[in-house]
Amino acid sequence: MSRVLVTGGAGFIGSHLCDALLARGNSVTALDDLSTGALANLESARTAANFNFLHGDVRAHIAGEFELVFHLACPASPAFYRRDPVRTLDVSVNGTLAVLELARSCGARVVLASTSEVYGDPAVHPQRESYFGNVNTQGPRACYDEGKRAAETLAADYRRAHGVDARIARIFNTYGPRMALGDGRVVSNFVVAALRGEPLKLIGGGAHSRSFCYVSDMVEGLLALAAYTGPDAGPPFNLGMPQEVTIRELAQRVLKLADSRSPLEVEPAEPGEPARRCPDITRARKLLGFDPRMTLDEGLQLMITDIRARAGSG
Amino acid sequence: MSRVLVTGGAGFIGSHLCDALLARGNSVTALDDLSTGALANLESARTAANFNFLHGDVRAHIAGEFELVFHLACPASPAFYRRDPVRTLDVSVNGTLAVLELARSCGARVVLASTSEVYGDPAVHPQRESYFGNVNTQGPRACYDEGKRAAETLAADYRRAHGVDARIARIFNTYGPRMALGDGRVVSNFVVAALRGEPLKLIGGGAHSRSFCYVSDMVEGLLALAAYTGPDAGPPFNLGMPQEVTIRELAQRVLKLADSRSPLEVEPAEPGEPARRCPDITRARKLLGFDPRMTLDEGLQLMITDIRARAGSG
Repeated sequence: MSRVLVTGGAGFIGSHLCDALLARGNSVTALDDLSTGALANLESARTAANFNFLHGDVRAHIAGEFELVFHLACPASPAFYRRDPVRTLDVSVNGTLAVLELARSCGARVVLASTSEVYGDPAVHPQRESYFGNVNTQGPRACYDEGKRAAETLAADYRRAHGVDARIARIFNTYGPRMALGDGRVVSNFVVAALRGEPLKLIGGGAHSRSFCYVSDMVEGLLALAAYTGPDAGPPFNLGMPQEVTIRELAQRVLKLADSRSPLEVEPAEPGEPARRCPDITRARKLLGFDPRMTLDEGLQLMITDIRARAGSG
Repeated sequence: MSRVLVTGGAGFIGSHLCDALLARGNSVTALDDLSTGALANLESARTAANFNFLHGDVRAHIAGEFELVFHLACPASPAFYRRDPVRTLDVSVNGTLAVLELARSCGARVVLASTSEVYGDPAVHPQRESYFGNVNTQGPRACYDEGKRAAETLAADYRRAHGVDARIARIFNTYGPRMALGDGRVVSNFVVAALRGEPLKLIGGGAHSRSFCYVSDMVEGLLALAAYTGPDAGPPFNLGMPQEVTIRELAQRVLKLADSRSPLEVEPAEPGEPARRCPDITRARKLLGFDPRMTLDEGLQLMITDIRARAGSG
């Protein structure tokens, strides 16, 4: 049994991670300022005796003795991170600084949640970890992209300069139950609209593609990264589903699975929206045994059930 | 007469900027923690009645009423910024946050000193401002590169979200009197070695190229950027000398001008060292009238004279 801290533990991925860590018999502390997370996500975790919730800002000095820290605290969807771009970058950099200082003081291993956004609008497909990315420092998404790039750099420097065992997960699009409704992410947007009979908006026509990983597969990947004891743990690991689907195709699948007659509506493209994004997960597959299995249809069905229950629709 | 704050005012470029601002009749406050700058650089500035020196950390809350802030405070040479990479990134991000907050509260215009390092090891030559760069977040130079990229993002977001008139200068290699000796930069290294009769080290063989701008030309560029009243002031401006010279060629010129018999010595390449770097200054030329004039031979001669005087050599 390990003492584990999950920053952003009340968020979408963070809360699933808490559940999985508790199921494996760990003692889990979740830290969250609830700015984008929700206590409802921790409903089941909070019934566990070895679970502890801290309401606070990850940038403040965090005390405690942990063997492992999953650092997920940061606004992570465009709708949230654009609301206050300065705060987003500030939280990403200074939250990571605080977590790495904690790890330095207590000897914890750290798994930093980075993002496929560090690749920006990639010129190379699929993206390997060795690709340095294509991010516009002046763009509307840069607060998140550059904030996470700087966080990755801090992890590398704490590793080199201070011997902190920091590992980096570049998380690609993930979906599943507990995604915040109205957070502007395409899967939850589509499911909510389909269940309400409202139009599914194809921004930029829906020809751009993404790859969607179900949250339980993502959690397995994060746990495998934390448990990894082999060589070469320092450089980043892509975690995600390597199957590309266009946004239009996604919309059509959601309509079919939800048995919805919502129309598709084309909207103008947003500036800085990457045209394609798909992980090359060779490294995670080889070193961590990462093997995402949930099919898109199965995952969407689970998500539709979850949103039906939460939204009281359909 | 304007009230001007120069952060990093005791540094190489910062001190020349203070002198130029004083010569133009401004009231100048220089802020520096003297971690890489030196009071000796301000010897002439400190004789001026309208000059004020503040010894302090740019990340601390800065108070005051200024019309203009030049934000240059950050370790800027590899030898300095690698000494404490975490602090380098911290100072770049949190120093810029502090300066932009100051500007927001007092309405000052800000000129942020960014760097050609935001282009990393560029795959495009020469570099235009529209090129998004090629930076390895895990590399030994990333603390500086990613720190400055994040600082540029903060400037863009303060501009958009808070109406701060922030401008960005991407400063390419600059040289001239007052460069810190032993700061690991190639021009000062070469001049010092040539004057001492020690070997000039060609790291990686000296085939990689740089473009060197004399400091008075750089100061003119920064002043022009601050004074600019036309449209499109927000996106970054490259400032530098668009003439490329290989490091071997630079070494040979230094030897000739210093009348030195120092040998050239080939050393192994350093990881992450960019192969070429040369600014496309079309934008600064057109909008700011930026026109660097000092030839490399003239500039090197002035620098040799300066280092002779400081080092007591030759």
